[in-house]
Amino acid sequence: MKILVLNGPNLGLLGTREPEIYGKETLDDIMDALRQDADALGVELMTVQTDIEGEMVSAITKAKWYADGIILNPAAFTHTSVAVHDAIKGCMLPTVEVHLSNVYAREGYRHESITAGVCIGQICGFGSLGYRLALEALITKIGG
Amino acid sequence: MKILVLNGPNLGLLGTREPEIYGKETLDDIMDALRQDADALGVELMTVQTDIEGEMVSAITKAKWYADGIILNPAAFTHTSVAVHDAIKGCMLPTVEVHLSNVYAREGYRHESITAGVCIGQICGFGSLGYRLALEALITKIGG
Amino acid sequence: MKILVLNGPNLGLLGTREPEIYGKETLDDIMDALRQDADALGVELMTVQTDIEGEMVSAITKAKWYADGIILNPAAFTHTSVAVHDAIKGCMLPTVEVHLSNVYAREGYRHESITAGVCIGQICGFGSLGYRLALEALITKIGG
Amino acid sequence: MKILVLNGPNLGLLGTREPEIYGKETLDDIMDALRQDADALGVELMTVQTDIEGEMVSAITKAKWYADGIILNPAAFTHTSVAVHDAIKGCMLPTVEVHLSNVYAREGYRHESITAGVCIGQICGFGSLGYRLALEALITKIGG
Amino acid sequence: MKILVLNGPNLGLLGTREPEIYGKETLDDIMDALRQDADALGVELMTVQTDIEGEMVSAITKAKWYADGIILNPAAFTHTSVAVHDAIKGCMLPTVEVHLSNVYAREGYRHESITAGVCIGQICGFGSLGYRLALEALITKIGG
Amino acid sequence: MKILVLNGPNLGLLGTREPEIYGKETLDDIMDALRQDADALGVELMTVQTDIEGEMVSAITKAKWYADGIILNPAAFTHTSVAVHDAIKGCMLPTVEVHLSNVYAREGYRHESITAGVCIGQICGFGSLGYRLALEALITKIGG
Amino acid sequence: MKILVLNGPNLGLLGTREPEIYGKETLDDIMDALRQDADALGVELMTVQTDIEGEMVSAITKAKWYADGIILNPAAFTHTSVAVHDAIKGCMLPTVEVHLSNVYAREGYRHESITAGVCIGQICGFGSLGYRLALEALITKIGG
Amino acid sequence: MKILVLNGPNLGLLGTREPEIYGKETLDDIMDALRQDADALGVELMTVQTDIEGEMVSAITKAKWYADGIILNPAAFTHTSVAVHDAIKGCMLPTVEVHLSNVYAREGYRHESITAGVCIGQICGFGSLGYRLALEALITKIGG
Amino acid sequence: MKILVLNGPNLGLLGTREPEIYGKETLDDIMDALRQDADALGVELMTVQTDIEGEMVSAITKAKWYADGIILNPAAFTHTSVAVHDAIKGCMLPTVEVHLSNVYAREGYRHESITAGVCIGQICGFGSLGYRLALEALITKIGG
Amino acid sequence: MKILVLNGPNLGLLGTREPEIYGKETLDDIMDALRQDADALGVELMTVQTDIEGEMVSAITKAKWYADGIILNPAAFTHTSVAVHDAIKGCMLPTVEVHLSNVYAREGYRHESITAGVCIGQICGFGSLGYRLALEALITKIGG
Amino acid sequence: MKILVLNGPNLGLLGTREPEIYGKETLDDIMDALRQDADALGVELMTVQTDIEGEMVSAITKAKWYADGIILNPAAFTHTSVAVHDAIKGCMLPTVEVHLSNVYAREGYRHESITAGVCIGQICGFGSLGYRLALEALITKIGG
Amino acid sequence: MKILVLNGPNLGLLGTREPEIYGKETLDDIMDALRQDADALGVELMTVQTDIEGEMVSAITKAKWYADGIILNPAAFTHTSVAVHDAIKGCMLPTVEVHLSNVYAREGYRHESITAGVCIGQICGFGSLGYRLALEALITKIGG
Repeated sequence: MKILVLNGPNLGLLGTREPEIYGKETLDDIMDALRQDADALGVELMTVQTDIEGEMVSAITKAKWYADGIILNPAAFTHTSVAVHDAIKGCMLPTVEVHLSNVYAREGYRHESITAGVCIGQICGFGSLGYRLALEALITKIGG
Repeated sequence: MKILVLNGPNLGLLGTREPEIYGKETLDDIMDALRQDADALGVELMTVQTDIEGEMVSAITKAKWYADGIILNPAAFTHTSVAVHDAIKGCMLPTVEVHLSNVYAREGYRHESITAGVCIGQICGFGSLGYRLALEALITKIGG
Repeated sequence: MKILVLNGPNLGLLGTREPEIYGKETLDDIMDALRQDADALGVELMTVQTDIEGEMVSAITKAKWYADGIILNPAAFTHTSVAVHDAIKGCMLPTVEVHLSNVYAREGYRHESITAGVCIGQICGFGSLGYRLALEALITKIGG
Repeated sequence: MKILVLNGPNLGLLGTREPEIYGKETLDDIMDALRQDADALGVELMTVQTDIEGEMVSAITKAKWYADGIILNPAAFTHTSVAVHDAIKGCMLPTVEVHLSNVYAREGYRHESITAGVCIGQICGFGSLGYRLALEALITKIGG
Repeated sequence: MKILVLNGPNLGLLGTREPEIYGKETLDDIMDALRQDADALGVELMTVQTDIEGEMVSAITKAKWYADGIILNPAAFTHTSVAVHDAIKGCMLPTVEVHLSNVYAREGYRHESITAGVCIGQICGFGSLGYRLALEALITKIGG
Repeated sequence: MKILVLNGPNLGLLGTREPEIYGKETLDDIMDALRQDADALGVELMTVQTDIEGEMVSAITKAKWYADGIILNPAAFTHTSVAVHDAIKGCMLPTVEVHLSNVYAREGYRHESITAGVCIGQICGFGSLGYRLALEALITKIGG
Repeated sequence: MKILVLNGPNLGLLGTREPEIYGKETLDDIMDALRQDADALGVELMTVQTDIEGEMVSAITKAKWYADGIILNPAAFTHTSVAVHDAIKGCMLPTVEVHLSNVYAREGYRHESITAGVCIGQICGFGSLGYRLALEALITKIGG
Repeated sequence: MKILVLNGPNLGLLGTREPEIYGKETLDDIMDALRQDADALGVELMTVQTDIEGEMVSAITKAKWYADGIILNPAAFTHTSVAVHDAIKGCMLPTVEVHLSNVYAREGYRHESITAGVCIGQICGFGSLGYRLALEALITKIGG
Repeated sequence: MKILVLNGPNLGLLGTREPEIYGKETLDDIMDALRQDADALGVELMTVQTDIEGEMVSAITKAKWYADGIILNPAAFTHTSVAVHDAIKGCMLPTVEVHLSNVYAREGYRHESITAGVCIGQICGFGSLGYRLALEALITKIGG
Repeated sequence: MKILVLNGPNLGLLGTREPEIYGKETLDDIMDALRQDADALGVELMTVQTDIEGEMVSAITKAKWYADGIILNPAAFTHTSVAVHDAIKGCMLPTVEVHLSNVYAREGYRHESITAGVCIGQICGFGSLGYRLALEALITKIGG
Repeated sequence: MKILVLNGPNLGLLGTREPEIYGKETLDDIMDALRQDADALGVELMTVQTDIEGEMVSAITKAKWYADGIILNPAAFTHTSVAVHDAIKGCMLPTVEVHLSNVYAREGYRHESITAGVCIGQICGFGSLGYRLALEALITKIGG
Repeated sequence: MKILVLNGPNLGLLGTREPEIYGKETLDDIMDALRQDADALGVELMTVQTDIEGEMVSAITKAKWYADGIILNPAAFTHTSVAVHDAIKGCMLPTVEVHLSNVYAREGYRHESITAGVCIGQICGFGSLGYRLALEALITKIGG
């Protein structure tokens, strides 16, 4: 089983910005830890980070040729990108949306997700733990 | 560690309604399985189901006297109840919101959650698996 | 054939409040007259009045075990209760929504019904006569 | 007692379009059956169908010279015609609004009725049965 | 100088409906009095009343062949008819919009006029006097 | 008969600004001409111009002690001043609202008038002629 | 004179939650102090606290049989409950709405009150003092 | 193959109004040219122009008895007529919506089309050429 | 202790307008009575009435040099004045907002208060009694 | 004559996704067929597909140096990209917007086009045929 | 070259309110420093501060007789005053809008400026420095 | 001191498009002149132009490693990009937003800036001069 983990804009800032608030984990740290979890479960991870909406679209549409599912943190594109929505719908792979922060505790425009409706489900508010929960959920759903 | 699992209106219908779609699991089945997971983790569960908003409010406000956290599926109250929002905020227990279905794939008024902003986070779309993920998240957060 | 007649909040006030306007009929009077109509048609009525949304939800979800249809006057819950909407949809019994007053001749927020969309249809504006029309409609639909 | 039954745009299509869904009854069939009901009750019916908003307006304003009440299915004009609203209000005849389908189960813009607020009440969702219920309601109200 | 006076839906009801409120003047009375005013000013009036939006459109578009200006009381079409708006704009005749009642003292949806923006101006609230004011204004503007 | 003519903010600019568009008439010219019309009709005019909302309010509330009616051009306050609305309603003098330009042909926020609903009526779009029409209307209404 | 003091959801939390912010007074403390004020004025108080909307509705509708007025703190129901609005309107007892906090200084959805429009008036922002002011106002109004 | 070409309100003005802008082609010129195109393709055209919404509705509902498809320019009715929408849906003939102007370059309320959603597609902005493109599209779709 | 009592536009009309409804008390009567209450409590009152928003702003900003608190009835400015809001916030004196009428029982735009959010609290609906309640509240808060 | 055909995000998925619904044609197939049509008309085509909004912007702005017109299918960017709107407006080349599907038959947010207002016109709903119609329209407009 | 610097409501509070936050500069200090900058550039400044909207309107309309440009800080009137908008447009002097704070970082209703659209441009967020930048911009534009 | 000057989509068109309106200055000309200003002030400029939102995001997030502040003209992204907003907030460098045109004098959707709220301030409407003002402001703020 192969899973694409796709991270959106500004997530490269993790760990270097206000570490006393967001923690010292970089995105690489989180991805490394997730890969260990995946290895233990016999799942292969592909991890990508991009600030460019169209690269996220391309990564999703191409995933259909090699992956069994997607863990997606669209970051700011969650609230603005019809193109990512169309890509998820078009690739027809089971996808789980993850957010590090609790989007409902932030500005009103972050409460709506353009992308979650074409995913299996959404997990938000649990920090890096959210990726591990998403992995567990995705494996169960693909397996089921 | 004691955790209250609080289920809202109409969840008593689970398992008896369109089982080919929603599965044959009743809410009791789901709670029993969750209790087994909790037992294995050394956590004690209290489970409550109510169709009455005010009983949900009371259950939340009283939980502060005996519980360490709450797993909450407010069902329809998610979208209408300021009282449940105030209760979660007032009891100051870590709370995880769970929905069986993907609320973003349903009617527009189900995309907004009045209650999630005062929880740690939200998990939706994974069926009964969502409760197990919530348990895992809550234990980690309480432990952390 | 058994039919549940379910009346919502404040309907207990009927007959005692401004009788020169609303008439002298109490809800009991209306239910008694309706029961006579039902008897003449060989139909058994169960009548319930509640001010509590969650009790209305429970009554609807339990009706599936003994009733063939529901006549529902949700009163104020018509405009606020997603939970009652979910209950009607979940119990899958044919339901007719009734309002004593013409909701379109009142405040704007009373023009929208959250609940009517999951009923067979709606009858409003005819006072107590509306229940008799609803009974006639429901029997025809169940029979048809 | 004389009653005008006034049907709006596209109702002439009934019976010829998707009969497996809408039934094989044409508008003429429905009007004929209604006339029989009316005859039995000693009421004379005038039936008119028009696709033209202004003809509906004229029919309503002229009805005051000969009719005792109106059964009105404004169809699409329900949601767009201030002129029909003004006509009903101006003619001061008791009017009952009927819809074959449950408008609340259709597109959002069909939930609002510009015309119902100046009628006695509204009946929707019961197919051709709705006309018979409207006749019963109207006779009772005129008689009352 | 020839002027078309064009009256919209339901204006035929004037004088016969609640005369203690709206006065006993029929539309014919008002038009006759206006014609006398016009005669005194050497202006020829054409008067038309229609309940049909499309006839109002046609009357406006044809007026360009024989009239020098239009006095228009679109009644309910004021608030709903893009077609009348387009006709006024297309015929390029100076047009004055008149309303018997003060539209700003009525329902909110009557405050907006789709048609007035393509007229010279609007006069409302002065009853039948409004037509005489409109005549005076139109003659001055055509003459100017 | 005494009439207050009350002009709002920026109307002092008339005649000095783009005279090829707005004409060379100053507000004084318009008021002088209107006073001549009034004299001929045996009516005494009081004319006031103010840029200050509160002075307009005070002028309206004091007019009840000496005037029989008000001709009011609230200019920009038309769209923003609840205080002027309250003043007109409170002084209970018949008031006619006048605008030089056709407010419906300008920005959307100029289509709504907060003040017109408590006046007898509104006249807009006819330039300085509008004041003469308002005078005629007001005299007729006070006389009637 | 008998007055019902009716407190809504979550008010039972008072005094136990963030006492450095909300003070150490429990709802019982506030009610006891209010009862002493009432005693001194020769007024009898009935005090009720409920988290259940329908119980608040029932308490209001039953108050008409024994009470002369109501002091109501609907808490979260202020912003969501049409049923409480209908109950106040239906029981026809003079009612004063009280809020401990200044609702205008909180989230936007707390600025609107569904219930205050059918009360005599509203007092907000003064903490427990608000109840004493409400008592004073209610006695004056009932006495007046 | 027979195709109805149905043109809405004000289109009769074409060619006579601002010919330096809209061109000198009348609607008859455009229809004649289109008929020649149709003849060359072995297709028979029926052309109708009406200013009356209800006549457009009737023409559409009757077309099902003799035509294979419709080219529809609803003009102003595009943005206001639920009745035309219902007629297109009810007649179940393949329909192509055409607009001479680019509706997206005009007022905001012209961007939404009530009717296009029940057509095959829409072509706008190409002047009379749009009809020829619509003919080509319709023939291909009917043929396909 | 010195308190500024600041009254907004149109309040000078009190007592002279519909005394059978609003009572015969003028604003001077109300202020005199309030001054007597204040004297008894050893508090000095400064009373100002103005129809001019900017004078209200100036009075508030200058109050910081001599007063201990403000009782403010902004009347119509409640709903329109950001400047008064900024003045209250800037002067940092404890302020109580008072309205004679129940703003929630009037037009929808009177339900929102731009100014109340920066006051301690708001009292509305109790007529002149509201000032006395405000005085009591303000003294308690300043004293507290 | 040289024409740029510019295709937006996710259009690379065509032909590989649900071929029984969308057909088996890939975007390459459609472009090849269009190139044959263009060759027959003596027109040279440049075809580009990109998932990246900024690349679409750059392609449009650079087209002004070599192309005579643009056929643009912005896909999801139609509804979100002010940048593409600005690019079309800035490059001043005649542009035709094409959509494979009927945007009016899809989600509400797809009814509005940010980009079409600065194009000549729009064609939607005809599948790959839309490109051929666009080519025909563009050649005529450039030639005209 | 003469420039009017016009400051709106509450700006007189500067320097006396929370100096640790807003700095110790009073408006006079800022104006004095700006006058020195202006002197160095050979420009004469007129400075006015007013809390009264109508005085701001009058100052703008009179400036056309003596000034070459305006630096305007409308403060709260930015968001509420159509009259100031009309004054700027009417006086036809080049005007630069300045705000001390970053309006986009404050409440949502401060993001929109009614007045900026008729100015040359807007500068916000730079404290007193904003006036100097505005001076520089205005001199360049007048000179250009 | 090093400053990044970052220009968004379509700004590469400057100078080549309607030079009689926008001037003959290209973006390179503007940047060169700005660099000369910077050199004179002992500040080093880095200038970047990109049409791609994600490249703007990356440029901002990377700037934190080498720059002391950012001058940002987000062009169309101002109104659509949450990702750019998040990048500015995340990089924590002082940023000044610049627009060549007066955004308040253009379409309504250009009045709101998603990005300005996380900048120090905004300057708009002064053409290329705006960059020089921004430079001055940024140096002062960084220096301060």
